[in-house]
Amino acid sequence: MSRRELVVLGTSSAVPTRDRAHPGAVLLWDDEVVLLDPGEGTQRQLTLAGVSAASVTRICLTHLHGDHCLGLPGVLQRRLHDGTTAPVDLYYPAAGQAYVDRLRRSTATAVLPEVREHPVTVGGPEPEVVDRWGGLRLLAAPLDHRVPALGWRVQEDDGVRLLPERLAARGLAGPAVGRLVRDGSVTTPHGVVRLDEVSTPRPGQAFAFVMDTRVCDGVAALARGVDLLVTESTYLADEAELAERYAHLTADQAGRLASDAGARRLVLMHFSARHPGTDVFALEAGRHHGDVHAARDLDRVPLPPRR
Amino acid sequence: MSRRELVVLGTSSAVPTRDRAHPGAVLLWDDEVVLLDPGEGTQRQLTLAGVSAASVTRICLTHLHGDHCLGLPGVLQRRLHDGTTAPVDLYYPAAGQAYVDRLRRSTATAVLPEVREHPVTVGGPEPEVVDRWGGLRLLAAPLDHRVPALGWRVQEDDGVRLLPERLAARGLAGPAVGRLVRDGSVTTPHGVVRLDEVSTPRPGQAFAFVMDTRVCDGVAALARGVDLLVTESTYLADEAELAERYAHLTADQAGRLASDAGARRLVLMHFSARHPGTDVFALEAGRHHGDVHAARDLDRVPLPPRR
Repeated sequence: MSRRELVVLGTSSAVPTRDRAHPGAVLLWDDEVVLLDPGEGTQRQLTLAGVSAASVTRICLTHLHGDHCLGLPGVLQRRLHDGTTAPVDLYYPAAGQAYVDRLRRSTATAVLPEVREHPVTVGGPEPEVVDRWGGLRLLAAPLDHRVPALGWRVQEDDGVRLLPERLAARGLAGPAVGRLVRDGSVTTPHGVVRLDEVSTPRPGQAFAFVMDTRVCDGVAALARGVDLLVTESTYLADEAELAERYAHLTADQAGRLASDAGARRLVLMHFSARHPGTDVFALEAGRHHGDVHAARDLDRVPLPPRR
Repeated sequence: MSRRELVVLGTSSAVPTRDRAHPGAVLLWDDEVVLLDPGEGTQRQLTLAGVSAASVTRICLTHLHGDHCLGLPGVLQRRLHDGTTAPVDLYYPAAGQAYVDRLRRSTATAVLPEVREHPVTVGGPEPEVVDRWGGLRLLAAPLDHRVPALGWRVQEDDGVRLLPERLAARGLAGPAVGRLVRDGSVTTPHGVVRLDEVSTPRPGQAFAFVMDTRVCDGVAALARGVDLLVTESTYLADEAELAERYAHLTADQAGRLASDAGARRLVLMHFSARHPGTDVFALEAGRHHGDVHAARDLDRVPLPPRR
């Protein structure tokens, strides 16, 4: 069975609290383990979450503010410590290159962990493909924060759902089905069968991760039709002025944009320390959207079942 | 009443565990708040310990391995976040300057926190005075680790304990006593009174902090006669070969050196993740020393009462 779920590592914003570690999350997607915004303490939160640093395959940074990246050196060093010499792919806004350089060389390690750097520059708000592996694409779009910032989207390629009754009616079974899926058609004793005759389209699943930002077109484009949308939610509606000034979202805005974008499930994190509880965030966003989860540290939230 | 105690922030070695955060400790000494080896997560551990980052007056690093310094950027940024613009004094091995530079500039902060840098170079094993404030001296001596490392000692100046009966016998009271202490003598209607005639010497209290090292002369000199000695204790006696190879102490060695140095109280931390319990470390060091405390995260250990 495929494993597609979000593991929340930390849910604070800049200031951690007794109950909230600095931001961080892991997307488990089949064999991929994508670490998103490793804030300070991520190495230990991974331990608490039962996810090994060595298992991480890719790391995405939305931006280079400390609460979103200070856990990077520890995670990289821990991989070495655990005996992993496999390089990890690191994606980040190209404008943050100098900080990435310093973070990677910030301590007196004998061996520098191997990293494949992917500095990313994007144009307009429409998400652009940054990388591609297996049946997945990684896309990025600009956020509107106080420093250059990117939101991330993991997009599964569209596929098909085979219809067993139609396959049977055309006498198709076994290896012929594999060839049909691979080649788009297959020749049988009764003639050519096209894939679309025995299947219906199966849209790929999608996930988006949006941290520090104002409401902007990039967020809307990233969130469009995703199965799981994770957004920051630093403030509440009555703090909209603070949100605007510091370039953050309110829970109200997050719920509204998830609803407008047709995102199926919304996970909120990155909460201001001024609000010790999380229910207030869920309630506010829930006025606009029916499936809102205000995350606590170490929560696991699955992608909803395929449509 | 003077407040002189150690606040333990984290007790792991390189690998944190469910119960142990990365190393870190605070020495509360009257008005001074000295942060020692801020490992990753120190900012949050300070919150859990009830010590504000803004209250920190000085920071000492033993060396620039990640588990001893990756919490530095977060602590500095948190001070700004809490509205403190007061500079903090930072002491570290001069050989680690490049890492300090990168740590201080590792994230996209709008304002760089103010730091007074004190790169320290020492000669032989005898502790050298690095700084001096109030009635205290900060001293450093070399450790024997895989990278340049320093142990730290906070030393109170020797003073005197006034003897009330002798003061009364010489007719001394009020402001005259203040002058006597300040000047060493005072003239009364009955003649000159010297301070040593109406007091006994009061040796200054002392504290030493020794992290990653093999047994060496620097450790012995730092620990000599201190009231409270904190040492790493990564391994147990039956792992002496590992300790030697990776340049660490066993609990047995720590207990022995505390005893040989006449340290009054020994606190152990920096434990290998292979030993989930702490009692084994206390028991082993306790074979050599009568006042051993194997620390748990967030423990507070006072300096023993003055002799």
